[in-house]
Amino acid sequence: MHSAQPALCSGHDPLRLARAGMSRLVEPTDPTAMLLLAALGPVAALEIATGSRPIGAGEHPVFVCAAAEAGYGPRQADLRRALARWAPRAEQLDPSADLAVAARAGAWFAVPEDPDWPAALADLGLFQPVGLWGRGDRRLLGFRAARAVAVVGSRDCSSYGRQVALDLAGALAARGWTVVSGGAYGIDQAAHSAALATGTAHPATVSVMACGIDRLYPPGNHKLLRDVEATGLLLAEVAPGCTPSRYRFLQRNRLIAALSAGTVVVEARWRSGAQNTAHHADGLSRPVGAVPGSVHAGTSAGCHRLVREGTAVLVTDLDEVLELVQPLGAAPAPDRPAPRSVVDGLSDPDRVLLDALPLTVPSRPDHLSRVAGLSAREVLGGLHRLEARGLAQATGEGWRRRR
Amino acid sequence: MHSAQPALCSGHDPLRLARAGMSRLVEPTDPTAMLLLAALGPVAALEIATGSRPIGAGEHPVFVCAAAEAGYGPRQADLRRALARWAPRAEQLDPSADLAVAARAGAWFAVPEDPDWPAALADLGLFQPVGLWGRGDRRLLGFRAARAVAVVGSRDCSSYGRQVALDLAGALAARGWTVVSGGAYGIDQAAHSAALATGTAHPATVSVMACGIDRLYPPGNHKLLRDVEATGLLLAEVAPGCTPSRYRFLQRNRLIAALSAGTVVVEARWRSGAQNTAHHADGLSRPVGAVPGSVHAGTSAGCHRLVREGTAVLVTDLDEVLELVQPLGAAPAPDRPAPRSVVDGLSDPDRVLLDALPLTVPSRPDHLSRVAGLSAREVLGGLHRLEARGLAQATGEGWRRRR
Repeated sequence: MHSAQPALCSGHDPLRLARAGMSRLVEPTDPTAMLLLAALGPVAALEIATGSRPIGAGEHPVFVCAAAEAGYGPRQADLRRALARWAPRAEQLDPSADLAVAARAGAWFAVPEDPDWPAALADLGLFQPVGLWGRGDRRLLGFRAARAVAVVGSRDCSSYGRQVALDLAGALAARGWTVVSGGAYGIDQAAHSAALATGTAHPATVSVMACGIDRLYPPGNHKLLRDVEATGLLLAEVAPGCTPSRYRFLQRNRLIAALSAGTVVVEARWRSGAQNTAHHADGLSRPVGAVPGSVHAGTSAGCHRLVREGTAVLVTDLDEVLELVQPLGAAPAPDRPAPRSVVDGLSDPDRVLLDALPLTVPSRPDHLSRVAGLSAREVLGGLHRLEARGLAQATGEGWRRRR
Repeated sequence: MHSAQPALCSGHDPLRLARAGMSRLVEPTDPTAMLLLAALGPVAALEIATGSRPIGAGEHPVFVCAAAEAGYGPRQADLRRALARWAPRAEQLDPSADLAVAARAGAWFAVPEDPDWPAALADLGLFQPVGLWGRGDRRLLGFRAARAVAVVGSRDCSSYGRQVALDLAGALAARGWTVVSGGAYGIDQAAHSAALATGTAHPATVSVMACGIDRLYPPGNHKLLRDVEATGLLLAEVAPGCTPSRYRFLQRNRLIAALSAGTVVVEARWRSGAQNTAHHADGLSRPVGAVPGSVHAGTSAGCHRLVREGTAVLVTDLDEVLELVQPLGAAPAPDRPAPRSVVDGLSDPDRVLLDALPLTVPSRPDHLSRVAGLSAREVLGGLHRLEARGLAQATGEGWRRRR
């Protein structure tokens, strides 16, 4: 392998180079690798992980201690087993080349030691990404997760789900929220598109991808992802050239959850990646909303499940999403402007009297009194109150309701 | 007025006659009347309420005490005020005639002192109905609320709501549950119809009406309500001839809630009678379910509101309704038969390996090892496990995925 340390000639510091190497060498959230990183730092971690040197006599107890503190047993802390797993990739490791490939694709590589590293990722603890490969204006990386909402859902969405995603993401973006999603077909696509169309935040939208940053996957979203790159951000934790695998999709979802104040699942099947994102968000104590739909639609079954299981709050519009993701008390969902009713503000006896008033043939107060079950005094007072509101009308033969 | 006591000639006992009189004299849940009834019994209560005699010196403290115990202030316990309210109807009170009108309509009158009085109504406490006017086989009155579900919703339902009501009520009735509803157009109509079609319980369905038992309201449901009468029950707490007023609809809803183990709101607008029924059920500690729907449908806004406010549990099918209304542990909703996935039962490394297997051009184990990030041993063991499941295929040039 190429050494992880020299390459100062390439203009990259050893730490960045080591993290780039780790991002190629290990799969996201590989616990043994994450423990090595946390215990010994990127440079030593990569040297040991690639087998270019054994773990030192002074380092080993630090590593074992870190594993025990993180609650890991002998299996996850089994370095020999992990080295066997990493060895096949170690042979061909060349982080400088990866950085060069990225640069050719217009991408950069950010590390947790950078001042603009998204602070929200720290909530992932041990499973913070090794680094982030990104495309788009690097200065946008410092966007505030507290002002971002993840809008996610199934690839095979319904036209209903697509419309809701467009509406919600568009409204959030117009209010200055960053919309985070996964760049996939279906709900993700609608969320990114709407955010690009109406967004006022910088970035208006962020797409966290499951493949290498040099790829624009899926192919049908090529144009969309180029648009995201132009004004927003594309992010990936796996190295350039990596294919999007099922495992990487699932791990990627934790980044979507971590980079936003809350996650809204617009449509999801009973078993789906969007549910996985929701559980990541829930695990990070980020609020989760789920949009209801027809009980006959398999595309909403996962949303209903999230609500039933208590993972998600049911949300139906922008105000309810804002109530979910904003700090407590910032902006409660306004009371829905309920259709005004003619009985609003009437006392109970006056409502009963109004019910008793005939629409056509007028009725005398003594008759109204019996029909309504009210005293003569209540009836007379009530009739005048209703008349004042334009609800009752006196005629020569008695009183009737005014339409 | 006609005396509340004599009419032995009519074959009615004084107590039944007094309760029939009260059901004509006072509106449902009139607190002063309910306190009089609770404190002094039906016969004395009617005598006092009609003004045929003043409250006795020995009775007054009992009444005041009952009011205080029930937490009522001077206003609700203000007998003079109440007498003014009742006086207009007292003049024409004739419970024997009411009973005769009911009998001509094929109806009977049940009182709490009857052995078959629905025990579940006792949960209404002070606001238990004065009596119940009923049509249908009187022997069915003793039906078990614990085996009944209220299925309610808006009159102006959508075709979606109508279908869900038909499905749920039909499935509940087929399982031997009694379906309780309000006899209105829309969801109520669908619930009664489906229960009549598939019902195996006695009664299969119960309609609690807001008008007098001699009326079949609304007119468009005449045939349906006749069918309910034929094999189920029609019930009303107000006296024969009474019109259905807004107030009576709202009061009637507490009976629907009380006569069932739980209430399912299929569709409801933001502000609706079905919501009122749900709150009655909640107040009685009876579980409430709400069916979700499109966020664009005003007909589902009330259901979503009930779920968001925590009054209702979101329910999407029969199993979830049964889980709601059955005693704890009786029958948890079965885990939905999720679509089986090829990865079910595979270990994580084997899943990763499967992802890495190419579909067309075969790949050698050492290459798979690098792609998947797995040790040589994990790859070889995994390939054979995947082969045994028919997921991988060995060729002369290496391994590929078997479709």
